[in-house]
Amino acid sequence: MSTINVLKNKSIESIPYFKVVGISSGVNKNNKEDLCLIYSKKPCIAAGTFTTNKVKAAPVLLNLKHIKSENIYAIVANSGNANACTGDDGYEKAYMMAECTAKHLNIKPEEVLVASTGVIGVPLPIDKVIFGIDKAFSKKESNAEAAMKAIMTTDTVQKTICIELMLNGKSVKIAAIAKGSGMIHPNMATMLSFILTDANITKDMLNKALKESVKDSYNMISVDRDTSTNDMALVLANGSANNTLISEENSDYKIFKKALHYVNVEISKMMASDGEGATKLIEAKVFNAPSSKTAKIAAKSVITSSLVKAAMFGSDANWGRIICALGYSGADIDPSKVDISFSNADSKVETCLKGAGLNFDEEAAKKILDGEHVVIEVDLNDGEFNATAWGCDLTYDYVKINGSYRS
Amino acid sequence: MSTINVLKNKSIESIPYFKVVGISSGVNKNNKEDLCLIYSKKPCIAAGTFTTNKVKAAPVLLNLKHIKSENIYAIVANSGNANACTGDDGYEKAYMMAECTAKHLNIKPEEVLVASTGVIGVPLPIDKVIFGIDKAFSKKESNAEAAMKAIMTTDTVQKTICIELMLNGKSVKIAAIAKGSGMIHPNMATMLSFILTDANITKDMLNKALKESVKDSYNMISVDRDTSTNDMALVLANGSANNTLISEENSDYKIFKKALHYVNVEISKMMASDGEGATKLIEAKVFNAPSSKTAKIAAKSVITSSLVKAAMFGSDANWGRIICALGYSGADIDPSKVDISFSNADSKVETCLKGAGLNFDEEAAKKILDGEHVVIEVDLNDGEFNATAWGCDLTYDYVKINGSYRS
Repeated sequence: MSTINVLKNKSIESIPYFKVVGISSGVNKNNKEDLCLIYSKKPCIAAGTFTTNKVKAAPVLLNLKHIKSENIYAIVANSGNANACTGDDGYEKAYMMAECTAKHLNIKPEEVLVASTGVIGVPLPIDKVIFGIDKAFSKKESNAEAAMKAIMTTDTVQKTICIELMLNGKSVKIAAIAKGSGMIHPNMATMLSFILTDANITKDMLNKALKESVKDSYNMISVDRDTSTNDMALVLANGSANNTLISEENSDYKIFKKALHYVNVEISKMMASDGEGATKLIEAKVFNAPSSKTAKIAAKSVITSSLVKAAMFGSDANWGRIICALGYSGADIDPSKVDISFSNADSKVETCLKGAGLNFDEEAAKKILDGEHVVIEVDLNDGEFNATAWGCDLTYDYVKINGSYRS
Repeated sequence: MSTINVLKNKSIESIPYFKVVGISSGVNKNNKEDLCLIYSKKPCIAAGTFTTNKVKAAPVLLNLKHIKSENIYAIVANSGNANACTGDDGYEKAYMMAECTAKHLNIKPEEVLVASTGVIGVPLPIDKVIFGIDKAFSKKESNAEAAMKAIMTTDTVQKTICIELMLNGKSVKIAAIAKGSGMIHPNMATMLSFILTDANITKDMLNKALKESVKDSYNMISVDRDTSTNDMALVLANGSANNTLISEENSDYKIFKKALHYVNVEISKMMASDGEGATKLIEAKVFNAPSSKTAKIAAKSVITSSLVKAAMFGSDANWGRIICALGYSGADIDPSKVDISFSNADSKVETCLKGAGLNFDEEAAKKILDGEHVVIEVDLNDGEFNATAWGCDLTYDYVKINGSYRS
């Protein structure tokens, strides 16, 4: 019996042997923290998943090589500039970030991972970033909050979680910090998620656990369907918990994977509910689909529909837009079998039965839709596969934020 | 040498033997015209294309049968209620609309086409609609403006065009009225387009001309990626121009097809620029793609990106979002070959060359983006196929309109 224990008010600084720092390098004009440095005194096993966008930012291209290294010691990330569409010059600068970090730690540049987030197509001010890395190494104490702030762009809340689980009587911790609120869409969106753990696990098993989890967590959230050039989720595991090495799909692996997935889903929900301009978290649950793929396509189509999202903003129980989104999703659905309801923790209002509208209580529905967490339940009544996707409403502020992002 | 002559201030009333009427039936609460009736005293050949949404409204399901009739005499359409997701009851009511119209004209119900637009999932108030049809038949004079108003929902401008062309020395006219500003997306969006002509053409040839045109007109516009349950484009041709019957792909067919396509493209641009809340028309032109499919996917991806659309609203020359949208489109593109520029009729600003940013004149770019018609030119430099897609900016008003559509 495995139990996941959430450690409140703890973050990535709680993972032994890691140091986490956030400082201001001057890239961000407002003196906000903009450089995040994470490193482990013990060598780490690392796994990563990266954007599927054909246009990949320089740090993504660099990491696709570096992630193959046997050991990784550090992640260095900047905000305010995405170092994307910056050509060979951008790639060299991403390498310089790794190289500078490696020098401080007396390790190889290939043992450092790099991330950037911000505006696309502007040359990275590398002098400031290098200055920032030097400054970060001068910090004596870990500060997870500063590290989190350093990767935030239009994010309005900090996204972090720390959990504890037991493996063979040993306490193992997993913690994450993340950023992401714009350009978030299934298939890795601009989001950075840095996950640290003291679990003792092989690279193969860590990779497998991350890949499987990502499909049902980060890849099931969407803010605006734009998939960014810079997305990544990285896990570093330094083994300091001294649990029996996880090297095969045994029960320890399953417990660890479940815990890692819990972290990723919670972080995903935090990202969706902090979608640019969002006022509420929208959770689309699809039940009884003929296949897992159909369930996922259907759930994603609902949370990505601009018309559904605008209706959610207006607390309008316009379920017609939901069935419409199911219909054009490309998923294998039979409209005449579809049931749709709105719910929250306390109540539920059924609005559509077998594809036709019900005479429902508009006031009760509005009360649900006025909440901060709205669940849209779709029963396809056509199989046994389920899926959940998370998104947010479409608001005036989304337009405001994105109408003048660069200025 | 074919010439298309635009007849200013003319609309569908100009096509001989057609009567076009718009009246208020009471479905719309504000006493706005909400019932449109179009009929021809001479039998027409008809062609239609319909929504690809799996959820098809009752009138679409009905028309898929009726369109097979050898002759069609009339189109009857209501706004204010989509008659979608209304089950067997809705289908019967759509049939009743055709039946009532047929009785007045002493024809068969299968010789009438039906359309509805408005809210989904609410029973159609058929008594009011039947009352409206009777009332429409009592009107002595054609009134294209009233007919147009009767199909408008959130549209803010009337969409119509009338052109004249010569076929074998005979004057042939094509005119259209259309509605559509929300739920517009490639693959037939909620849009209704009713096209009338006096051309003498066979059903096969009319069908072929329409199908080929739709791919590069209505299917290349997008307002918000939502594809509706009710879309359709219908053409009625009553042959009264007495041109030599077009029954094969001869030069007359080519002239007619070109003219029909002209009408469809102009109507498409009117719909895109009247996208819900839109302040400007965005035209994405993709050049030198390795295939026609790639060109189309790339052009559509640019005009459907929420981030690009919001940047256009803010007149922000954020080309990074354009290359990003190309990257995640799924199209076969090589980012390192991509050039991007913004232009209008008077000037052009290049912002990205071979995938990397240029140091461009921000003021000159802003001046272009402040206009009502912005062209985004993307050169993939990787083939010889081109495509154009039309969309609009994403604005506060889009959110406002769709946050409370039903109320």
